[in-house]
This record gives sequence, structure tokens and C-alpha cells, in this order.
Amino acid sequence: MYGRLLLPELQVLLAENDIAGVKEFCDALYPAVTAEILAELESQKVWRVLSCCEAQKQAEIFQFLPLPQQIEIVGVIERGPLSKLIEEMAPDDRVDLLSRMDDEHVEELLPLMAQAERSDIRKLLSYPEDSAGAIMTTEYASLPENITVAQALERLRQQAPDSEIISYIYVVDEGRRLQGIVSLRELIFTRPARPLSEITNRDVISVRVDDDQEFVAQQMARFDFIAIPVVDHQNQLVGIVTHDDAIDIMQEEATEDTYRLAAVEPLEDSYLSTPLKTVIQKRVGWLIFLLVPSFLAAKVLEHFEGVSDRFEWLVLFIPLILASGGNAGSQSATLIIRAMALESNIQREELRALLHKELQLGLLLGSMLSVISFLVSWAFTSQLIQASVVGLAVFLVVLMGISAGGMLPMGFRKLGMDPALMSNPFITALVDILGLIIYFQVALYLVG
Amino acid sequence: MYGRLLLPELQVLLAENDIAGVKEFCDALYPAVTAEILAELESQKVWRVLSCCEAQKQAEIFQFLPLPQQIEIVGVIERGPLSKLIEEMAPDDRVDLLSRMDDEHVEELLPLMAQAERSDIRKLLSYPEDSAGAIMTTEYASLPENITVAQALERLRQQAPDSEIISYIYVVDEGRRLQGIVSLRELIFTRPARPLSEITNRDVISVRVDDDQEFVAQQMARFDFIAIPVVDHQNQLVGIVTHDDAIDIMQEEATEDTYRLAAVEPLEDSYLSTPLKTVIQKRVGWLIFLLVPSFLAAKVLEHFEGVSDRFEWLVLFIPLILASGGNAGSQSATLIIRAMALESNIQREELRALLHKELQLGLLLGSMLSVISFLVSWAFTSQLIQASVVGLAVFLVVLMGISAGGMLPMGFRKLGMDPALMSNPFITALVDILGLIIYFQVALYLVG
Repeated sequence: MYGRLLLPELQVLLAENDIAGVKEFCDALYPAVTAEILAELESQKVWRVLSCCEAQKQAEIFQFLPLPQQIEIVGVIERGPLSKLIEEMAPDDRVDLLSRMDDEHVEELLPLMAQAERSDIRKLLSYPEDSAGAIMTTEYASLPENITVAQALERLRQQAPDSEIISYIYVVDEGRRLQGIVSLRELIFTRPARPLSEITNRDVISVRVDDDQEFVAQQMARFDFIAIPVVDHQNQLVGIVTHDDAIDIMQEEATEDTYRLAAVEPLEDSYLSTPLKTVIQKRVGWLIFLLVPSFLAAKVLEHFEGVSDRFEWLVLFIPLILASGGNAGSQSATLIIRAMALESNIQREELRALLHKELQLGLLLGSMLSVISFLVSWAFTSQLIQASVVGLAVFLVVLMGISAGGMLPMGFRKLGMDPALMSNPFITALVDILGLIIYFQVALYLVG
Repeated sequence: MYGRLLLPELQVLLAENDIAGVKEFCDALYPAVTAEILAELESQKVWRVLSCCEAQKQAEIFQFLPLPQQIEIVGVIERGPLSKLIEEMAPDDRVDLLSRMDDEHVEELLPLMAQAERSDIRKLLSYPEDSAGAIMTTEYASLPENITVAQALERLRQQAPDSEIISYIYVVDEGRRLQGIVSLRELIFTRPARPLSEITNRDVISVRVDDDQEFVAQQMARFDFIAIPVVDHQNQLVGIVTHDDAIDIMQEEATEDTYRLAAVEPLEDSYLSTPLKTVIQKRVGWLIFLLVPSFLAAKVLEHFEGVSDRFEWLVLFIPLILASGGNAGSQSATLIIRAMALESNIQREELRALLHKELQLGLLLGSMLSVISFLVSWAFTSQLIQASVVGLAVFLVVLMGISAGGMLPMGFRKLGMDPALMSNPFITALVDILGLIIYFQVALYLVG
């Protein structure tokens, strides 16, 4: 990124204590770019740079820093300037930060802020994490119904600087209940004397303040919205969620699902900025849990010790049998879990169709892998009977793996749990146990 | 979704051949909702519904249908109405559809369209798939520099109906070269007589027409843009990519990575609408390829047959050893691949820090799992020496698995390949081979 090439220049300006130079440097770049450069510096230095800028620019740049760094920097700023910085931040970014800070620290800061900001913060902090209320911003443009287009534009002129997005303007009644929506474009291109109510679109789609953030993002993607209004239980407008939040949520949810599939508990921050201790906590639980099926597999092997003693070649193909079933099962689980994540309104008939498809796939993929395994193991052992055992076992284990990989995530979903909890390692572990039983039974049946 | 509750009503209207009723039905709902209802119907019926609507509404609804269904429906519409429908579609959605249709069919349709649309289509079709050019729309608002704010608003009034988004307006010179950007908000709230050039922001971030779509989406997410301008090699403005495309791309890329991690080749459409044959093609290659390391594992086991004959209990713990290493390695690979996908500008020092972290994790997680495996297998076999072999092997295999899972995706990236190709099943397969060697060597060392 070209921003990083500018880091040395900024270092020189800092070393020379050239305050005007630093301010000019920051004003010349996009806040997102400045933030990327600052991400390379330690907290004290970041704050030295930011304090050269005007309050608004300061907040703009600060908001683009990763949250863990924001929290670090907050620790080195004195209460006075810190409360000012937080006052200037966008309501949603501000609450993200405050909800991660120590409660005591927050309580120290709040009295230093203006009454309006303070109550806004307290309200946003009160919404549960991952709800529409926790991610929305309170900076939006709203207008009463009973004015003209000209009056509407005049009012917007006054409130606009505070509103994050004014592509849509929300029309509310005296009780702040959401009545409809007007686009800025319509407002400009309509005769000024026309009443606002005439151009208000009343068929407005909104989300509830306690809706899950994933649902909010899906609604925005579904309707291609730039912003979606958030209402409380009395249909009063309380905020909006904007398109950039939708992207962040989608990324976050996709990352969570990917982690879960690999049996890692979701991290709050990026992997890079998560401390070692937290990473261990997120990984070790599943790893230990997954030892259980492995010991069960040992029990199975012990049970069939008589068979494997008599037919020693059986042991050679244990990795092959287990890997075939596990791989095919993981593929199915991943495809089905991702399909369910992408289409939240997936229907029962569609699930049944998916399951039917998995069974067909199990038969077809099982046959193909079975034939190849049969041929290769025949070449390997030169024994037709041994190759037959391997071939038949691969067929059955792949069929079983695909069935398990397809059905278990659906079962989890039916129980109201996150289907992605049915991680690939867990599916593989189940396939290990059942696969060994199938393998030895096939052997007993064919040669025993 | 509440839309589906309305399907029976629509069916009744269709059965009664109530054209006005169907039109009213479609006009009353959001196009996205109508499309969800239509997704339940067969192509002939969908077209019967759409042909009741006005041309613009027709196109709006059609655009929200999934691409495979669009292609099916296109097959049942006659050339005349079809070319009209395609003319009305947004340029980016239109090109998505045409690029998936038979070339002959497209060549039949093009002569029926207006000259301007035709050349627009030919141009957009010429850009490589997954490039900015292929996903951009040509419906944007642009203005020359040398006019006043009042003139600018007047011109927008004329071109606005055609522009997908006019939150930003692009300022170009006589050669259509991109000069800067003006927000609609600034335009409205500025004195009408002021020259446009005075309020133009010249520090505009754009992408090139051949930039990869993933890069485009990342730039939009980085700067929180609603739309980003696309320029050609002469810096001429050729289109814009909008926020809804950014969300789609992010979803698509996340899905691709998830599939790759589970050794499934990316699908073009949703899993639900992909035919069985295609799914098999996307899955079977990897499954067959992954048989190779399994046969190598058989070779390793054959090599150590003498050892496992003497110490039969060794076989019992093969699934445990392989699963521990494979699971820990998959976790590492997933975390690192996702980190690289989310932060495209990840630096060499950061990668080194990540690798260092993985090694520490290998030592720590390896120790924890080793102690537990030692204790459980001691309880299992009541033999201290056997438990020691298992414990030490688990430690080494987990350490090896995590190192491989961490390093291999980075190596792939360094070679300029997609790190997600280093799928978890492949990592697991490598761990299988090396894990068996380590296990038997440990056994030979401790008991042999």
C-alpha cells in the first residue's frame, strides 16, 4: 500500500516536532490511509500525530484504526482530550470502543461530555452485542411529514453536517414513529412548494433494534440498500445501519463460520492482533474435545484386534479408509453449512432436496473412489481379495461420510444451534469411529 | 420470508388470467420480494407474471432472480420482448446474464437493441471475468468542470433517472478523463452561482478497469465508499462499482475460500442450484488426488510393519496421532489463510510474527494435548512406556502439524498461488504421512 511509503516522512516531521507539518500531512491524505500509516507506530506517537490535527480530523482518522489499537491509544490520552475525541467520533464507532474499555474508565469520561452525547452513548451501550441497536448510528437525517419540499431542504441544510448519510431521509410523525422515506434525489428534483408527504414512500423496510446483526446485513444485501432504518418496539426511529457496517458484518460472519468449520472458536479481533493466550483458549477446547472420539477409535481397534492380527495388511489401509470418508464428509458439511449461511430463508423442501443430492453424491463419489482404491490397492498388494475389502470399505465409508456431513449440520440447525458448530474435524472424528467399524466388518464378511 | 405467504394469491390471479391483478400485485411489493416469490415458479409462469408489468418494473424484478433462473427464463421468451427486457436491465446485471448465455443467442438479440445499448453491452462483455470492468455499471452521473452549481443541478435533473446512484457525481474533462468528485449534498447546499470546479474534490480514489474484483471490493471496504469510479488506461471514466456489488464480491470470495479449505473447487452458482454433475466435477478431483498421500501412508505403515507386529498396541493409537496433528494443523492453516484473505496488505514482518506465533502455539498446544493423551492412554493401557510413546508422539505430531499448517499457505502465497489451495484435507494428508513416521520412530526410540 502506497501509504506505508510515507511513514518515514511522518517520522521525520515528528522528530523535528513540526506540528504544522504533521497537520498538513494528515489533511492531505484520506483518513483511511493516514490510519494505515499510524497503525505502524506506537500509541504515544499516534497520539502525538493526532493531537496536531483538528478535532474532527482527529476522530475521522482514529475511527479507521483497528479496535485493539484504539484501546491501547485510549490508555495514553488524558481524560480531557480523550472525552473530546470520543465526542467527535461517529456514534456507532464510539460505542464499539466504549463497550471494549474498562467500565471505570468509561464512567470517568462520561461526565466530561455534553449531556446529549452522554445519553446517546448510554442508550447505545444498553443494546445487546451483535444486535441492530449495537451497530447502528444515530446520525441520520429525519424530517416531519407536514412541511413542504422547500422547508425540508432548508431543515436538511441545518442538520446535514451531523448526518452520516443523507441519500435517504426518514419521515417521522410527532411521536418520532417512522412514517416513510424520501430520497435526496427526489427532494431536489421536485417542485419546492409541494408537500413532503406527497413524495414520501410509505412502504419502508426497517429492522427492529433487537434484530440480530446478521439478519440486518442480509436484509441490506437483499434489497441493495445503502442504509436501513432501525426502529424500537413502538416503531420509533432510533437509528440507521449503513452499507459499510453491512460489509463488516458479512466479513465477520463469514470469518466466524470459517473458523468454526476448522474447530476454532471465533476471535473478537483479527488473528494478527489477538494475543497468544486468547488464541490458545479459542483452540485448545476443541482439540481436547476431539481427543475423545480418537480414544473411542482406539477402543474400536482394540475390539477388532483379533481380526487385524490375522490379517495384518488391514492396518496398512486404515489411513486411506479414514481419510476418504473424512474428506468427502467435510466437503458435504462445508457446502451445506455455507449454503445455509448464504440463504437464511432456505426452506424445508430445499433442505430435503439437498439431502437427496448428498445421498446421490455419496453413491456416485463412493463408487468412483471405490474403483480407484480397488485398482491401486490391487496393484499394491497383488491380492484380489484384499483389494476387494479396501474397495468395498471405501465405498461404504464415503457414503457414510457424505451422509453424516450432510445430515449433521441440518440436525444442528433443527435443534436451533449454529450448524457451523458441526466442524469438519468433528465430522472427521465421527467418520473415524464408524469408518473403522465398517472396514473391519467388511473384512470379516469377505475374508473372515 | 413473508413474501412466500403471497404465492397462493399470485397463483389464483394467474389461474384467473387477471392481468391487471398481477400487475397490481407486482407494483405493491418490493422487486426483491416479488423475485423471491417468482423463484418458486417455473419459467413459463414467471414470464407470464413479468409480462403483465411495465417494462421497467419487469427488469427490476428480473434482476433480483438468481442467475441460473434468469438463464432458464430467457429460454422461454421470444426475441422481441426479450431484447426489450435486456435493454431495460442495469448494465452490470445485463452483462452478467449475457456472458452466461449462448453466444449465438446473444448475437440474435443484439441487432434488436438500440445502438447505444448495443455498444455498451459489447464493451462490457469484452472485459475479463472478475475484473472491475466486468462488474461495473455504466449508469453514473458525470458533469463537465466548467459549469456552475446551478447548471450542474439542471444537468443532473436530465440525466438522473438513468443513474444508479447519484450520491457522488463525477467531474470529467473534455476527454472524459476523471478530474474529481462532488457529493450531491455539497451541490445542494452550495450557492448556485459558484463554479463547480471550486467544490470539486480532486483527490479521488479510483480503480482500473482491469483490476481484480476482490481488490475493488477491498478498496470500497477500506474507504467505506458507496461507489468507486472505474477508469481505463487513459484515466477516462468508464463506469462505477456500487456498494451492493462490493457485498456480493465479498460473499463470493469468502465462499470460494471456505470451499477451497474443504477441498471443493468454487462453484459459479449457489450450491442449491448447481446441478449434480457439476458438483461431482468440483469435488471428485480433489478426492482422487487425496488418495495419493493415503497410499503413501500405507507404504509408510508397510515399512514399519516389523515394529507394529512386535508392538501391536501401537496400531490402536494411529487414529489419535493422526487426528491430533491434522486438527491442529487445519486450525492453523484456516486462521492464517483467513488472515491473509482479510488483510491484503499484510507485510512480510507480520507474516514472520504470525509464523513465530504458530511455533509458540505448536509448543504450547502440543504440550497440553501430549499430557492429556499420556494420561488417558496410561489409564487405557496401564503401561507407562506405551503412554509415554503416545504422549511424546502427540507432542511432536501436533508441533509438526501446526508448523505445516502455518507455513504451507504462506509458501503457496509466496509462489503467487492462492493460499486457500492449501486445503485442510491436504494438510491433514501430509500430516498423516509425516505423523506415522514420527510415531513409529518415537516407538523405536523408546521401546525398540
